[in-house]
Amino acid sequence: MKQITGGVTAAKGFFAASTAAGIKYKDRQDMAMIYSEVPCVAAGTFTTNIVKAAPVKWDQSVVYNQTHAQAVVVNAGIANACTGEEGMGYCKATAKKVAECLEVPADQVLVASTGVIGKQLPIDRICGGIDAMVPKLKDDIESGHQAALAIMTTDTHEKEIAVSFELDGKTVTVGGMCKGSGMIHPNMCTMLSFVTTDAAISKELLQEALSADVQDTYNMISVDGDTSTNDTCLLLANGLAGNTMITEKNEAYQTFAKALHFVNEYLAKQMAGDGEGATALFEVKVIGAKTKEQAKVLSKSVITSNLTKAAIYGHDANWGRILCAMGYSGAKFDPEKVDLYFESAAGKLQIIKNGVALDYSEEEATKILSQPEVTAIADIKMGEANATAWGCDLTYDYIKINADYRS
Amino acid sequence: MKQITGGVTAAKGFFAASTAAGIKYKDRQDMAMIYSEVPCVAAGTFTTNIVKAAPVKWDQSVVYNQTHAQAVVVNAGIANACTGEEGMGYCKATAKKVAECLEVPADQVLVASTGVIGKQLPIDRICGGIDAMVPKLKDDIESGHQAALAIMTTDTHEKEIAVSFELDGKTVTVGGMCKGSGMIHPNMCTMLSFVTTDAAISKELLQEALSADVQDTYNMISVDGDTSTNDTCLLLANGLAGNTMITEKNEAYQTFAKALHFVNEYLAKQMAGDGEGATALFEVKVIGAKTKEQAKVLSKSVITSNLTKAAIYGHDANWGRILCAMGYSGAKFDPEKVDLYFESAAGKLQIIKNGVALDYSEEEATKILSQPEVTAIADIKMGEANATAWGCDLTYDYIKINADYRS
Repeated sequence: MKQITGGVTAAKGFFAASTAAGIKYKDRQDMAMIYSEVPCVAAGTFTTNIVKAAPVKWDQSVVYNQTHAQAVVVNAGIANACTGEEGMGYCKATAKKVAECLEVPADQVLVASTGVIGKQLPIDRICGGIDAMVPKLKDDIESGHQAALAIMTTDTHEKEIAVSFELDGKTVTVGGMCKGSGMIHPNMCTMLSFVTTDAAISKELLQEALSADVQDTYNMISVDGDTSTNDTCLLLANGLAGNTMITEKNEAYQTFAKALHFVNEYLAKQMAGDGEGATALFEVKVIGAKTKEQAKVLSKSVITSNLTKAAIYGHDANWGRILCAMGYSGAKFDPEKVDLYFESAAGKLQIIKNGVALDYSEEEATKILSQPEVTAIADIKMGEANATAWGCDLTYDYIKINADYRS
Repeated sequence: MKQITGGVTAAKGFFAASTAAGIKYKDRQDMAMIYSEVPCVAAGTFTTNIVKAAPVKWDQSVVYNQTHAQAVVVNAGIANACTGEEGMGYCKATAKKVAECLEVPADQVLVASTGVIGKQLPIDRICGGIDAMVPKLKDDIESGHQAALAIMTTDTHEKEIAVSFELDGKTVTVGGMCKGSGMIHPNMCTMLSFVTTDAAISKELLQEALSADVQDTYNMISVDGDTSTNDTCLLLANGLAGNTMITEKNEAYQTFAKALHFVNEYLAKQMAGDGEGATALFEVKVIGAKTKEQAKVLSKSVITSNLTKAAIYGHDANWGRILCAMGYSGAKFDPEKVDLYFESAAGKLQIIKNGVALDYSEEEATKILSQPEVTAIADIKMGEANATAWGCDLTYDYIKINADYRS
């Protein structure tokens, strides 16, 4: 497997386009479209929030009830959440418009929205955007890149990646893009992520691969503990790579799953590191756990702790807050057995041993914590299981962005 | 029942003192002591964090195993948490020192600490502080007030209250003080709270009254979702009011419980409103719930949401974040039945009806949300149960305070 240039258009037969439809933002693109020249099998994971946005409900219906999907249309600026029947009507109208323009069935069109909750979509501008995008659909790298830019809200940069690998002598590609910066919390696939592949794989195994992988990737990140109403991860496979159709969990499935994991983990980390206002990606590894679940609960509790996140912003080795966050996580462990390390490009330093502080250099610790990617490693010495979670620091800019997001 | 002036020294026979022991802060008092001229029955609730500070373990042993307690000594600046056997030794040494000075048994001395985690107490200064305080112990209002000042860390003001009421023709008083601003989260009695009463009541019923009441008071507040290692609420009753000993859940018990609730709710709200960096107390009432537990889960989820807290700071009626936080709380409800109101001294305004936004005035909403105490009321129309939770807004100053708390 190797990383290649590109995103959602990297795999064979996938086209993308984007446009400035003027939905909320001015002077920037705010709509994107993904289209496969042949029907795809589609898998999806969605927010677990009881308050589900209309496009989430629409996509669940498509992914769960239809055999195929062929297009995705996305808008940034308005979430189409808490919009009642009117909002559901706009999903249907959007899909119908795409269907007419692309000559595909409306129930094979996926829709996604991100932005402010409670406002209705300006459906005329959405339809205008679709009209503008369809003639621009291209399968080149640049079109995928522009789509990744168009779906951003408070993101500071686009997020895309692609990898390729061999199956049965054929080159198979998995590529994806995502957006997500605020309202990010591990309880499903976080915010909007779109992954495309030309692998030939059954719908059942595609869903299984995705559902399993989001547990270790998107569900292990948090920016602010707020699980969005719109979180959606879609995975489309059009089979154009020409590999033997994957219909069982054989070696080819494992190879595919590995590539999918690489893409998902990269995109998830990109979202965590680009958390609203963040200056650092904060990685927490819990090792020596009895079970993976225990390691996950502990690592997620630390990356979600406001006090720990503020300390990371201050480059302050305030390890007591990390132990404290582990302590209230609900997972059982012996605080007096914990070893804790900080690590980054600037080095690695043990901070506590068996729950008590070592005589470490605060200066060295601060140097390590001043890097753009910092890791805390907690060894709880109970077994062999590990887990990693990703978050970011909590900064003045997080407040700035969110104290008045709507205006 | 009426509110009276004073705090921990309001009830008969309770004395307080404070001093500047130089534990961490300079030029301010950082130790306090409470003493009852006769032995008290004591009740306590403590942090549920697995990582428990040494003084929490010490006090649990005193409250659970001893029939009586007579003194409490508190220091601010160092939490004596994650300090291993050495830290436990300092609790014992502190209690022993108090015992010698006051001629009471060491196992009837309660200790409490708040501040940075992981540092050892300077036991010589603690003992020096005790030596300085014992001769200063007084039962006047001012001594109680000074004690409330001495236990503060990042608090911006002291927090104390007292009420009195009649039982059997005798005046009974309940008074208390607390400190708490950061690391505040509803999972036990939050941070340090000390309540004294001259009521005559059995130890069993005292504990029962306290344990029941913290569920609706301290456990319903949150500043930052971080449950401290040190949270402690202690309630001492010395019986000097002369009422008939309360040994069953009769009318006198209910009267006492009501007064205790008034004191606890006041202190809890004071902590929430004085959350680190806060500019507003944010109250969330969930009404029309099927069960009280459901209402509690929903209201606590809203006050804990960073995005909602940032919106409150911005005086932004971003109601979508409130619905979103209710949606991921884990409690079941129908989002399309929810009515939501904002209320403050500036008025009351309905924002959404049956899950969809009304055509309300943003200007009026902002006016309501610009008050120092704001309330959101969510009616979920499922039954008769209600709950209230208290939090605060999330501000630049929260980041400022916590990005470099240790230095």
